Amino acid sequence: MVIILDNGLISPGERLDDLQIPPEGGKPLRVIQDPGGFCFGVDAVLLADFAKPPKGGSVADLGCGCGVIPLLLAAKTEAARITGVEIQKNAAQMAARSVLLNGLEGKITIIHGDLKTFGAASAYDTVTCNPPYKERGGGLLNPGDSLAIARHEVCCTLADVIKTAARILKPGGKLNIIHRPERLADLLCLMREHRLEPKRMRFAHPSPRKTAVMVLTEAARGGRPKLFLEPPLYIHDEDGNDSEEIARIYGRR
Amino acid sequence: MVIILDNGLISPGERLDDLQIPPEGGKPLRVIQDPGGFCFGVDAVLLADFAKPPKGGSVADLGCGCGVIPLLLAAKTEAARITGVEIQKNAAQMAARSVLLNGLEGKITIIHGDLKTFGAASAYDTVTCNPPYKERGGGLLNPGDSLAIARHEVCCTLADVIKTAARILKPGGKLNIIHRPERLADLLCLMREHRLEPKRMRFAHPSPRKTAVMVLTEAARGGRPKLFLEPPLYIHDEDGNDSEEIARIYGRR
Repeated sequence: MVIILDNGLISPGERLDDLQIPPEGGKPLRVIQDPGGFCFGVDAVLLADFAKPPKGGSVADLGCGCGVIPLLLAAKTEAARITGVEIQKNAAQMAARSVLLNGLEGKITIIHGDLKTFGAASAYDTVTCNPPYKERGGGLLNPGDSLAIARHEVCCTLADVIKTAARILKPGGKLNIIHRPERLADLLCLMREHRLEPKRMRFAHPSPRKTAVMVLTEAARGGRPKLFLEPPLYIHDEDGNDSEEIARIYGRR
Repeated sequence: MVIILDNGLISPGERLDDLQIPPEGGKPLRVIQDPGGFCFGVDAVLLADFAKPPKGGSVADLGCGCGVIPLLLAAKTEAARITGVEIQKNAAQMAARSVLLNGLEGKITIIHGDLKTFGAASAYDTVTCNPPYKERGGGLLNPGDSLAIARHEVCCTLADVIKTAARILKPGGKLNIIHRPERLADLLCLMREHRLEPKRMRFAHPSPRKTAVMVLTEAARGGRPKLFLEPPLYIHDEDGNDSEEIARIYGRR
């Protein structure tokens, strides 16, 4: 895509956030965000930590928004090529500017497009997706509303994501996705339907003793059935502070 | 079934275990077990606590073994009629003797039979099942081995259990089942396939921070998709003692 730098890398009203985790030997990662639009949350950071793309491998991030997952994967893994696809033009432009800002244009490509028609068959080792969590529901949403597109299944459903992942992953390639536990049956059954076998799962809880609010799942294209459940991930400890694991994931220790 | 009381209620070599939880106003529950055979574990006790049969309702326990789940449900719930079905004759006889021992023959019926052909269509409000966890595997098992039948899918598979539950449950009736997390995708996909919608789920962990080793699931016949995840259940606390919840479930406080 062609990026028009009307106002330099950062446009008026946008915010520059420090992602803390520095790429090896480099400066800390930074990401441009629009405080009036959808800003990434802990879920994107958890997903980027959960996904383990192979050294030298290729990754596609479906619905990359501001590009936080491609940026984190470029910093934290040895993936060689990371492609983010985003249907919202403003977000895609912003993501591309963040890539330039961090000097990662040799590793990350941002595509403005629809994930449903994105990518060649069997092209990727790893697919990541932090999808809209909510079903479209009763038509109360404005399809032009960028927040609604990020949060609700306006432009793509969970089935679209799974179907795309099954198409663009290499045999044995991995889909890494985060979702709400209330959609767990939808998620696992859609995966099975598209021959993406759930192999690894981790629940994220606000703190110990609290109910999990997110579930991370890795599925392998054409894998054999047997799910490995990982230990629970707690965001805060019992005292309400960031857990040690969250501090590690955010690169604070 | 006809119970032949050769040696009174308890046969030589059998053991009488105190289930602690007394039926309302009654004596503590006791269950006969054969120490040389399959003895019930914490999973059966957790499942009997997780299931919430309606007041005056009917329950079928598929593969009831020594009858621990029917006995606990008779003591802890207001279900009116509880039927346990067990394919192993010795276990069914033992369960029936435990029912007599506790004076619960007006509430509990034990059937010696195969769950695959058990029960009338749409007859039960609640079905419970603590199934064999392991797939049959490579044919190393002796099909006459009672321990193997209780632990491995020798006489019935998970699909058989789900199919039977879907057949004998009333519309809106609930299946309550416990299984290993590694079979979660099998469980949820088989439920969906048979129009049993997963509605409520709880993971049981040996202690906080440890990976869950069991998952309790409730599915409703013909229910609408939306899964409610309950808080994690910890068997031990951080110090290795029984958790408060386990003490409550076992009737110790």
